[in-house]
Amino acid sequence: MDPLVIRVHPSDNVAIVVRPEGLTEGAALPGGLVSREAVPQSHKVALHDIAAGAPILRYGAPIAFTTRAIPRGSWVRGELLTIPPAPDLDELPPATAVPPPQPPLEGFVFDGYRNADGTVGTRNILGFTTTVQCVVPTVEFAAERIRRELLPRYPGVDDVVALGHNYGCGVAIDAPGAAVPIRTVRNLALNPNLGGETLVVSLGCEKLQPDRLFPPGGECSRGGETLVRLQDDRHHGFAEMVAAIMEAAEKKLAVLARRRRVACPASGLVVGLQCGGSDAFSGVTANPAVGHAADLLVRAGATVIFSEVTEVRDASHLLTARCCSEDVARDFIREMRWYDDYLRRGGADRTANTTPGNKRGGLANIVEKAMGSVAKSGTSALMAVTAPGERVKAKGLVFAATPASDFICGTLQLAAGMNMHVFTTGEGTPYGLAMAPVIKIASRTALARRWPDLIDIDAGRIATGEATIESVGRELFDLILEVAGGRRRPCAETLRLHNPLALFNPGPVT
Amino acid sequence: MDPLVIRVHPSDNVAIVVRPEGLTEGAALPGGLVSREAVPQSHKVALHDIAAGAPILRYGAPIAFTTRAIPRGSWVRGELLTIPPAPDLDELPPATAVPPPQPPLEGFVFDGYRNADGTVGTRNILGFTTTVQCVVPTVEFAAERIRRELLPRYPGVDDVVALGHNYGCGVAIDAPGAAVPIRTVRNLALNPNLGGETLVVSLGCEKLQPDRLFPPGGECSRGGETLVRLQDDRHHGFAEMVAAIMEAAEKKLAVLARRRRVACPASGLVVGLQCGGSDAFSGVTANPAVGHAADLLVRAGATVIFSEVTEVRDASHLLTARCCSEDVARDFIREMRWYDDYLRRGGADRTANTTPGNKRGGLANIVEKAMGSVAKSGTSALMAVTAPGERVKAKGLVFAATPASDFICGTLQLAAGMNMHVFTTGEGTPYGLAMAPVIKIASRTALARRWPDLIDIDAGRIATGEATIESVGRELFDLILEVAGGRRRPCAETLRLHNPLALFNPGPVT
Repeated sequence: MDPLVIRVHPSDNVAIVVRPEGLTEGAALPGGLVSREAVPQSHKVALHDIAAGAPILRYGAPIAFTTRAIPRGSWVRGELLTIPPAPDLDELPPATAVPPPQPPLEGFVFDGYRNADGTVGTRNILGFTTTVQCVVPTVEFAAERIRRELLPRYPGVDDVVALGHNYGCGVAIDAPGAAVPIRTVRNLALNPNLGGETLVVSLGCEKLQPDRLFPPGGECSRGGETLVRLQDDRHHGFAEMVAAIMEAAEKKLAVLARRRRVACPASGLVVGLQCGGSDAFSGVTANPAVGHAADLLVRAGATVIFSEVTEVRDASHLLTARCCSEDVARDFIREMRWYDDYLRRGGADRTANTTPGNKRGGLANIVEKAMGSVAKSGTSALMAVTAPGERVKAKGLVFAATPASDFICGTLQLAAGMNMHVFTTGEGTPYGLAMAPVIKIASRTALARRWPDLIDIDAGRIATGEATIESVGRELFDLILEVAGGRRRPCAETLRLHNPLALFNPGPVT
Repeated sequence: MDPLVIRVHPSDNVAIVVRPEGLTEGAALPGGLVSREAVPQSHKVALHDIAAGAPILRYGAPIAFTTRAIPRGSWVRGELLTIPPAPDLDELPPATAVPPPQPPLEGFVFDGYRNADGTVGTRNILGFTTTVQCVVPTVEFAAERIRRELLPRYPGVDDVVALGHNYGCGVAIDAPGAAVPIRTVRNLALNPNLGGETLVVSLGCEKLQPDRLFPPGGECSRGGETLVRLQDDRHHGFAEMVAAIMEAAEKKLAVLARRRRVACPASGLVVGLQCGGSDAFSGVTANPAVGHAADLLVRAGATVIFSEVTEVRDASHLLTARCCSEDVARDFIREMRWYDDYLRRGGADRTANTTPGNKRGGLANIVEKAMGSVAKSGTSALMAVTAPGERVKAKGLVFAATPASDFICGTLQLAAGMNMHVFTTGEGTPYGLAMAPVIKIASRTALARRWPDLIDIDAGRIATGEATIESVGRELFDLILEVAGGRRRPCAETLRLHNPLALFNPGPVT
């Protein structure tokens, strides 16, 4: 209990300092090791003498190479390390180590809202899809009035949310990258938490015309009566535009208000996983606990989505091996290659990930960050890979390719169909989404104590020995079901912390 | 009075249909011309027989070439036309037709807020700069409480505005394009309407650290006391973060509330010009009237900014000729070349501009749109050209290179130092900004009548002969001074229509 350091894998030649005050010089560590210098909390201490040019092993994998010999007991700082190359995409093992299915977990249910398309909502929200950024202030104005004047009369409806974004006009809408933001806006409207009753607000002259956003006859065609077009001749001025939106909204509210929560199997859950403001503990405490919860969810039949291309790129070889088929491995490699090219066109590569906070938190580079990040995915087989903005249709563990930006990733996971969001953080971030409940997990107890109204689960107890990866994972699994069923609200939902949607537009603006 | 068609330039071989009902087949036009078919309002009718492959001349310039012969009286539709190539950037005439200065206009003043850096505010706003998107909901939460609880005690302060944006982390911050969004966020904080009292809210672990945003000792270094860092140990939870922001804000409010409007010469005006939802009338009515106002403003010593690279690209040869020096012409060509390359990298070119609404409104292509768009710039010499996100320091007419996206352009003009915004529209858009008053001008009377609470000036009266370009231009000039001095509020300000800031990030996200 309450160890000084944590080693994740038996072959690791470094361990992570646990105590908030760090190690002092001369501190006695397990196995007769003595620290040669002070090492801050969550940073790495060398367990053996490490030769110049040798690998630093963490999670059993080479996360870096040394630039000079590092004696045992030293602080293994970023300046002493070089980064390994990313795994070669032409050499990845496809479906070579597919984990066998684990025993199903039967009988887990939550009270959800059943949708006509077979999805299940965890909330009952009226959403306004916007075809173009021009209408955003008008829609916000109307949404605010609806929340104040109409919503109290429809207590079964949880919220009114304007799906504002920065797309639709002033963009190269026929450029190769344009498909991504367009399908994102479309699929956001199909999110299970909007109950299939999305109202579309269009300006009229924009590039992203409603029929382009929702091709008639397609899976996501809209009913004509749900479209409000601000430039229509029938609206005399702003007041009438707002009135038209409110009138259309009230019809939708009446429909939504008649819905009732019913017991749904856990297979109706689509849980999106993300991390933001990670530290070296994230990969030891919060992310493995989420990984355990992910395994439980998969066993219970749910869909679990993980994402963030630049944070899995260095673990590509591990993930292609876990793909359930060679086809899925090929899809994974296609997404990695697309992102490599995208970054290269912009003069960057995957090392553009890692922040000053990551480094201060002990993460040497993107390889170490990635190894900790993929711990969120647990140990199941990877059943499908989707491109940015696509809907996820598979059950089980799915990789939805997205940027690692918290806001873009969250938006794309909502477009993928996420109805519950789990977010781990080391440094702490007051993050939240309007369209799905967000459960926040701290990698360190200090953060959980400092932010009691923002953090839902303290995974730091794993480092101190007060809890285990399995116990915190189970706690999260149970909380997901409670929140999904509307019996609890996580902190971010209580505070109404709603980060704006952020689209991924790889194409140019005009 | 009330003509059927308008020809802009004596050499034009097309004219624009004026009447809302359009032309019927067989309508008698001036000069014995008879229409051969119905032609909708704001579309083009052929004034002469035009041979196959001949140029269509509008504004005295070739806006297109015909794909087949077009008899006089025909509707000159987009399908009958091909687009000319963009002017060759290596062949542009530099400073070859510099307009001589027009007689100065003396004695025009407005009541503004003088700033320490020599700029003048037209409004007295407390702004919150955000270093990263993570803090946006927290800052919005605090701003809303400040507006409700504190602002009523400081009646001299007009508003509290969170400068939220989608940058700061999850981005390739060392990529070549990153300088643009970073300097934009920095220069937004220096906008004259924020009075130099911007409060900076940082998360803590983000890539865009406060010292990177505002390098210490630089022109825009911040006072340490104005920074609130959410991850600071001293904030116990969300409530204390909000309290810290409110406490810092109240100190700023007290300073801002002591400021008084004083008479300032018109040279304190920095007027940004933009158009959105243009039609074929925009280049005949609203934009030329704005151009006349621009000339008056320049004569009164003000700075006038026009922008929108893809909407001036096809008029490059006219603009380099008007540059006051070969250096300024070189700067202009540099910006055009940069944007050509940027679009090419994304698989697009300048023809990605023009929308379904533009085309429905009679604009055949980007050349015709550009010729109408540059009319906003009036007839003065071009004194300076700035890159996206840079501050404008010159007086007179300045080209600030920006995308044509209304929201990105507006944001970049605010970063350039704009304290008044003028926006022309043909199709109509309920556009507005939080940081500067926006005056909206309709190109057609029908729109002005339909949207009386959104349109400030009806330039459609120019088409019907009820007013002239000069009279509407003068009306706008007078209104700009009244609004700048706080004696009037334009429609968008009254309704508090605040489009979110939209950064231009040519670099990749991670």
